[in-house]
Amino acid sequence: MALTLYHAEPLANSAKSLIPLHEKGLAFESRYVDLGKFEQHEPWFLELNPEGQVPVLVHDGAIVRHTTVINEYLEDAFPDTPPLRPVDALGKARMRDWNKFVDEQVMNFVSIHGWNRRVALLARQFEEAEFDRYVARIPLLEQREKWKTARAGFDPKDLANAERKVRIAVDKAESQLGETPWLAGDMFTLADINFFSHCAMMLTRLFPEIGKPELYPRLYAWADRIRARPGVAAALAGPDHTDPAIKAAIEKPRA
Amino acid sequence: MALTLYHAEPLANSAKSLIPLHEKGLAFESRYVDLGKFEQHEPWFLELNPEGQVPVLVHDGAIVRHTTVINEYLEDAFPDTPPLRPVDALGKARMRDWNKFVDEQVMNFVSIHGWNRRVALLARQFEEAEFDRYVARIPLLEQREKWKTARAGFDPKDLANAERKVRIAVDKAESQLGETPWLAGDMFTLADINFFSHCAMMLTRLFPEIGKPELYPRLYAWADRIRARPGVAAALAGPDHTDPAIKAAIEKPRA
Repeated sequence: MALTLYHAEPLANSAKSLIPLHEKGLAFESRYVDLGKFEQHEPWFLELNPEGQVPVLVHDGAIVRHTTVINEYLEDAFPDTPPLRPVDALGKARMRDWNKFVDEQVMNFVSIHGWNRRVALLARQFEEAEFDRYVARIPLLEQREKWKTARAGFDPKDLANAERKVRIAVDKAESQLGETPWLAGDMFTLADINFFSHCAMMLTRLFPEIGKPELYPRLYAWADRIRARPGVAAALAGPDHTDPAIKAAIEKPRA
Repeated sequence: MALTLYHAEPLANSAKSLIPLHEKGLAFESRYVDLGKFEQHEPWFLELNPEGQVPVLVHDGAIVRHTTVINEYLEDAFPDTPPLRPVDALGKARMRDWNKFVDEQVMNFVSIHGWNRRVALLARQFEEAEFDRYVARIPLLEQREKWKTARAGFDPKDLANAERKVRIAVDKAESQLGETPWLAGDMFTLADINFFSHCAMMLTRLFPEIGKPELYPRLYAWADRIRARPGVAAALAGPDHTDPAIKAAIEKPRA
């Protein structure tokens, strides 16, 4: 059975679907898409995902898009692998409530800070005409605007509002982890993978005033438990092709 | 087994969870929450949902929030009722991809036009001091801002952008219905219920330039098939306590 994941570096969206594949012990072909070369907007990739976004899963020719959908698909398509979704109806609902929260109330607010550092550097590497040619290929208007803003600089008000949203999310997670060992209850689930990949794993680097173990001891202990899982470690050890100069700049904690 | 839905008038979010309850033939207690009296922000309701939003499902004391989560919960908790979710993994992924699209790319853009008509009238009924007291109780900052904007008037640029997004969504649905009888394939699913409740059922009224059967013949035929289902008809026939003056104003197609 052919299973292929098209993905970028193992963080955010790409980590979110690489982790379940490794945790479930599924054999899959890893196809690296170089965001630094805008490969996600090339015609061959747009055939897989007209929105021009990684990751994309292809299973025996069927295309599955959007990480939350991909991850539930892996649960449904491979029921004999280690489960990352509760068996009971209420547990599933708890997991999906967290997934929805991360997808709608967290991801984009962390992302704007990530873009403000990583993508801004990338976008400014190009001459204006070349940059405009790349941007013109991006299928979604919102993404075109985001790339232009990354090059021009994000509005400090938007960055501050995003930080406010991230703080609400981190408070909510810390509070939940005082009640249950994992976000959706007693079991490590897709909800933990989602919040870890989209927020917790870059918290210290992107939000120095929030991302402190002494402020969020339960969250940091939970993130350590996640990193210690062999499947997670294998997923995060995947190749990182980020330009070394950009990598050095983004890995330095924010001043 | 006690099942209770706290909901408002049968449209948008409330229709979206009322329809599956009726389609599945589930006996449930209907608890009406009067948005015209801001009951969703009263302390007793905030105990059920700290975000102050309808609908909320309570099943034997367990609280389930957010319509997409509620609707999948009904599938999981009542497997012996008529299914509204495909059995196969790929069908489920197709349904969830549409649900995600409606939740993230459609709902809020229809909603701003609905608010621009319905909630604006409601918000302007109050004296400023009384309005401010109601708004101060709203738990989510984004919702407080939305209520204030509804009273002051939405930015025409935001309304135009929302109409652009709705047109993309309606085009996408019309195209899908040229390939499959229902949005996620051969079966009527939660994806159809979602797009119908959040977009199709108010299309003609809110977007006169988009909502024309001659422009979208497949979509209108699909909506007619949905309305003809006894479960849907029963859900939509539920009580409507909207103030008659507001009701007359909002039911008049937009000029």
